[in-house]
Amino acid sequence: MSPPIRTLRLTLAYDGTNYRGWQIQPNGVSLQAVLERALKKYTGETIKVAASGRTDAGVHAVGQVVSFRTSLPAPCEGFLHGLQNRLPDDMMIRKVEEAPADFHARFDSISKRYRYVIHNSPIRWPFLRNYAHWHRGRLNDLAMHDAVQVLVGTHDFRCFETDWPNRKTSVRTVSEAKVARYDSAAVPALAGAPPVPGDDFVCLDITADGFLYNMVRSIVGSLIHVGRGRWTAADIRRILENQSRRHAGDTAPAQGLYLMEVTYPPDDDRPVRAPQGTLPDAEFD
Amino acid sequence: MSPPIRTLRLTLAYDGTNYRGWQIQPNGVSLQAVLERALKKYTGETIKVAASGRTDAGVHAVGQVVSFRTSLPAPCEGFLHGLQNRLPDDMMIRKVEEAPADFHARFDSISKRYRYVIHNSPIRWPFLRNYAHWHRGRLNDLAMHDAVQVLVGTHDFRCFETDWPNRKTSVRTVSEAKVARYDSAAVPALAGAPPVPGDDFVCLDITADGFLYNMVRSIVGSLIHVGRGRWTAADIRRILENQSRRHAGDTAPAQGLYLMEVTYPPDDDRPVRAPQGTLPDAEFD
Repeated sequence: MSPPIRTLRLTLAYDGTNYRGWQIQPNGVSLQAVLERALKKYTGETIKVAASGRTDAGVHAVGQVVSFRTSLPAPCEGFLHGLQNRLPDDMMIRKVEEAPADFHARFDSISKRYRYVIHNSPIRWPFLRNYAHWHRGRLNDLAMHDAVQVLVGTHDFRCFETDWPNRKTSVRTVSEAKVARYDSAAVPALAGAPPVPGDDFVCLDITADGFLYNMVRSIVGSLIHVGRGRWTAADIRRILENQSRRHAGDTAPAQGLYLMEVTYPPDDDRPVRAPQGTLPDAEFD
Repeated sequence: MSPPIRTLRLTLAYDGTNYRGWQIQPNGVSLQAVLERALKKYTGETIKVAASGRTDAGVHAVGQVVSFRTSLPAPCEGFLHGLQNRLPDDMMIRKVEEAPADFHARFDSISKRYRYVIHNSPIRWPFLRNYAHWHRGRLNDLAMHDAVQVLVGTHDFRCFETDWPNRKTSVRTVSEAKVARYDSAAVPALAGAPPVPGDDFVCLDITADGFLYNMVRSIVGSLIHVGRGRWTAADIRRILENQSRRHAGDTAPAQGLYLMEVTYPPDDDRPVRAPQGTLPDAEFD
């Protein structure tokens, strides 16, 4: 008799620098392919994983969530170490948990939080080139924080979407958005290096029930105009109402973006799975 | 008439991850080769540069200093931008300054400061893999600080040296050494990521008139034993007095090491250049 099949939920951190993105691509190495290859080596099974959403080339994750089914009976802790030993050092498994049989990392997620990191400094440190977007001139982070509040709530976000053919709806609900300046004194390579100012990072944290393709990065492109004093919160409101991508700012580069956290309902509260025909579209960073 | 030759002093930051070290190597790309190629493209001249010291493969710099001669009459500011445009984004020129005709970045240096960064956390973040040495168990940074004080002063440091055939003297003077714990709350990718504790980095800062090959990294290897409670300051003293490499700790990995700063006397106070026969040996990290 073959062992019973179980569903596991993995929480992953990864450095997206050396990958062509999450999803398996014809050319270039993907995070999904590397994870599935390690799962094959560890379990002996051919496993297809489902992630909470795809991340683009160069985008990082602190808390990506992935689900899959396996018949390997290893306890979660042992599974974590056995799998980690077969992964490269730019992918780290933070947690392995038992999940309900029909748990699905994408369809069951209720919200996601992304962070976008801008290194706002006259000095462009080589150590940060893959981990933040550099902006030389001092940004007005308070104006950026005020402007991003315009986006909180339920809106049609197509103005902040890079074209994607399969989209059914571009309405999303942003539950929280915050722009703040962070002190860099503790960034180890920088601390004490004269003349590093003490407040070098401007970060956007944004939580929504889902994100359109390049949504966070085009919001950041627009907020940078606000931070430079060229646009105001009223301009952001006008872009949102116009629903036209060409009015919004450029898509900010991938290396500043981190998928921080994915939220799920408690297992008992999960809704009954929607029938296949009404499943939501693929989610993107 | 050809334009007069001038001597320039460059201050450089670089990410050593993708290099085989500072010095030109038969196999693999070196920082020196990349800089000299960019100088050739910018000035049209074949220029040999002199650095304050070599850094090993994977070692970083925040303030490496380099000297060379050129007949290009560009002002320093223009030289900086012209050269930067021909460099990859993991090398950054922080300063270009005029220097006395016989200035030499190695022979004129009076001291150097290195920093070694230990990421002291139960969580191994993929973003830090090239920028810090990870140590899971909590280190006693106060004991490490006390122990490293044993090394301050003028000593024969051969116990902390990886064998090097051309060494004339292994006596060096350490003027300052400090171990301290730094808060990681401001590391952008980590801030707010549960469950990151607030004090994740232990750094050694050490200043000396020169360093032997792998000296900082083998001091760190020994200090980690102290931080784990296996050795005491008295053990470090015994190692120093025994003058035997095999008693000291392992050489800590390259990716945690940063050349932070090189100090020179004011131009008027520079000593008359020593005759060639008595020049000091090559300096290493």
